[in-house]
Amino acid sequence: MSIITLTTDFGLKDGNVGVMKGVILGIAPQVQIVDLSHLIQAQDILEAGLILRRSAPFFPAGTIHVVVVDPGVGTQRRPIVGWVGQQFFVGPDNGTVTMLVEYGRARNFEMGFIHLDRPNLWLERVSHVFHGRDIFAPVAANLANGVSLGELGTPILDPVLLNLPRPMPTTTGWVGEVIHIDHFGNISSNITDEHLIAPDVRVRIGKVVINGLAHTFADGNPGDVVALFGSTGNLLVAEVNGNAAQRLQIRVGAAITVEKL
Amino acid sequence: MSIITLTTDFGLKDGNVGVMKGVILGIAPQVQIVDLSHLIQAQDILEAGLILRRSAPFFPAGTIHVVVVDPGVGTQRRPIVGWVGQQFFVGPDNGTVTMLVEYGRARNFEMGFIHLDRPNLWLERVSHVFHGRDIFAPVAANLANGVSLGELGTPILDPVLLNLPRPMPTTTGWVGEVIHIDHFGNISSNITDEHLIAPDVRVRIGKVVINGLAHTFADGNPGDVVALFGSTGNLLVAEVNGNAAQRLQIRVGAAITVEKL
Amino acid sequence: MSIITLTTDFGLKDGNVGVMKGVILGIAPQVQIVDLSHLIQAQDILEAGLILRRSAPFFPAGTIHVVVVDPGVGTQRRPIVGWVGQQFFVGPDNGTVTMLVEYGRARNFEMGFIHLDRPNLWLERVSHVFHGRDIFAPVAANLANGVSLGELGTPILDPVLLNLPRPMPTTTGWVGEVIHIDHFGNISSNITDEHLIAPDVRVRIGKVVINGLAHTFADGNPGDVVALFGSTGNLLVAEVNGNAAQRLQIRVGAAITVEKL
Repeated sequence: MSIITLTTDFGLKDGNVGVMKGVILGIAPQVQIVDLSHLIQAQDILEAGLILRRSAPFFPAGTIHVVVVDPGVGTQRRPIVGWVGQQFFVGPDNGTVTMLVEYGRARNFEMGFIHLDRPNLWLERVSHVFHGRDIFAPVAANLANGVSLGELGTPILDPVLLNLPRPMPTTTGWVGEVIHIDHFGNISSNITDEHLIAPDVRVRIGKVVINGLAHTFADGNPGDVVALFGSTGNLLVAEVNGNAAQRLQIRVGAAITVEKL
Repeated sequence: MSIITLTTDFGLKDGNVGVMKGVILGIAPQVQIVDLSHLIQAQDILEAGLILRRSAPFFPAGTIHVVVVDPGVGTQRRPIVGWVGQQFFVGPDNGTVTMLVEYGRARNFEMGFIHLDRPNLWLERVSHVFHGRDIFAPVAANLANGVSLGELGTPILDPVLLNLPRPMPTTTGWVGEVIHIDHFGNISSNITDEHLIAPDVRVRIGKVVINGLAHTFADGNPGDVVALFGSTGNLLVAEVNGNAAQRLQIRVGAAITVEKL
Repeated sequence: MSIITLTTDFGLKDGNVGVMKGVILGIAPQVQIVDLSHLIQAQDILEAGLILRRSAPFFPAGTIHVVVVDPGVGTQRRPIVGWVGQQFFVGPDNGTVTMLVEYGRARNFEMGFIHLDRPNLWLERVSHVFHGRDIFAPVAANLANGVSLGELGTPILDPVLLNLPRPMPTTTGWVGEVIHIDHFGNISSNITDEHLIAPDVRVRIGKVVINGLAHTFADGNPGDVVALFGSTGNLLVAEVNGNAAQRLQIRVGAAITVEKL
């Protein structure tokens, strides 16, 4: 049994995700298909890459992650398959895989990329507008069936990788930025537990100053705004039983600073 | 292994779709269940039929599509099973299957319908308000288990079929209407690549005039409004990296015209 | 084959539900995973418990229901597994299971609870903020694999059970309260077919008086407000082809009264 995960910005109302599953199961009836998210903001490659990087490490070796956030569908951008350690990526070559590649580099994982240039393993008729169905779903299914990477395409050394915003050191700590707001309104930053070790810090975001780090979301009274490390090591700002992003009027890209005390 | 797809207007928050899956897996543990959409507009039979017609052709032969958009639940409307070529339909007899039937007719597929009138294959207690759980889920599961069509009910020749709006020829081309707005705000019309062959056309919708057809969504500059054929052959109007329906204030039912140049 | 269902307030956009599935399938590749709801209102333990109680009885014996609505994650609240008849529950010990326990008591089902205090069956690194991934998913997967309850933890006799609002008798009938509003805007109350037998009643909710009970949603003209029994026996108020909760401006907790005529 293999697992194929799906991440898209297709939404949930139009049946497009279901169609991809139909194509996959027609080729590889034995796979388990898992949805990661289909509510990625339209064309938001960075958000898709973040969800992929946070999710892939928790899947068994050999899992195939299809990620289709594809503003360039039907243009010259390449379709690719990549591997980062034991996790496979299938999707457009637009940088979605950047954060997963960084994760793999930090762990010295083997990595490689292949340009999908063998249409014989795609659907017979390839539309200009739905490569998730016509190229990426059949490629993932064939990969799950044991088709070799060499049969899928040609090795490449230059997949598109994006320059991600990084926290900058200051005289007293770090200045970073908000990279994600989750369903609860918890604010996630690119400052991580690799930057900060001591809990004895002051966090500034929007008009709020937070002294010290909490251990978990309930570590305070309802309505308190707390800072803590999330489950993937990122510095979060949350409101106990509330929605911090709404309360603080914070969006992705906002600045966040940490001073060591 | 069989596949059962589910399409409803039940939404995703109340657990009703999950309950249908529990009933199915209790009867047919080996099936793969695929969600097409549970965000069909409440009671919108046409939208459900469109999603079904666009999705079913991409599923393997023998797939069973359960579609429950059922404003008449508990009234005299019949529960039915139908087949259009190798795809099966299970749901209320309210016209949902119309577009799939037209698709099958155009291809000379075999078709047939059965009135589900054998309660011995339903749940023991049938409520007046949740036939998705009590009738359609068990019928689909039994069908997946190999129960014959004759055991499920009685053949009928008069399933409900709806009169769908069709494009009308004009002196210079066609006038059609908007039949769907997708998650991205792309506008889908009932004018298809069967009406239009040459790309040398002028499209009018709302207050906008579009000259010529694009090849794909990115075939223009961000913010451009383009017309193109979608992945099922319908004429679409889209905004490059944007939401055309919001931009043009277009809803389902709006007129769209095409003139050959 | 076993079934594991998932119910959370995690939403659908962040990939957290997918990560739980990755953990489960890494341990127990053969299970079928079914989503009940991931759109439980944030921290709404009662809503999660209602969805669980309405869904669990329709799943095959041995199904494992993971319910993670967990405002106390990372605090001293216990992780537990419980069983009510042939249905298993895995989640935080915060009262989510109350309605299912009441359902089981009314049927004299066997029940029991275990404090999950054996970290050797959890993920190696347990975060303070995501026990769904780190504790509950691996426990459910191990249970599906046949690990015995005794290996998972220590029996307890005092799971947290909540005092649920109950209808009160009046001189002419009952006064109850609204316990759920569904996707269609149908209003569900805690008055059930155990309180009311005769259909000859008058229902009052908000500023509306409804005489008599309908049989199904379509039992009236579009726009009529009707009262009827839902598919789990609760008294509902619905608008034919409309949204009763919006129309009547009703929220969870509102009063509803029934008078026998």
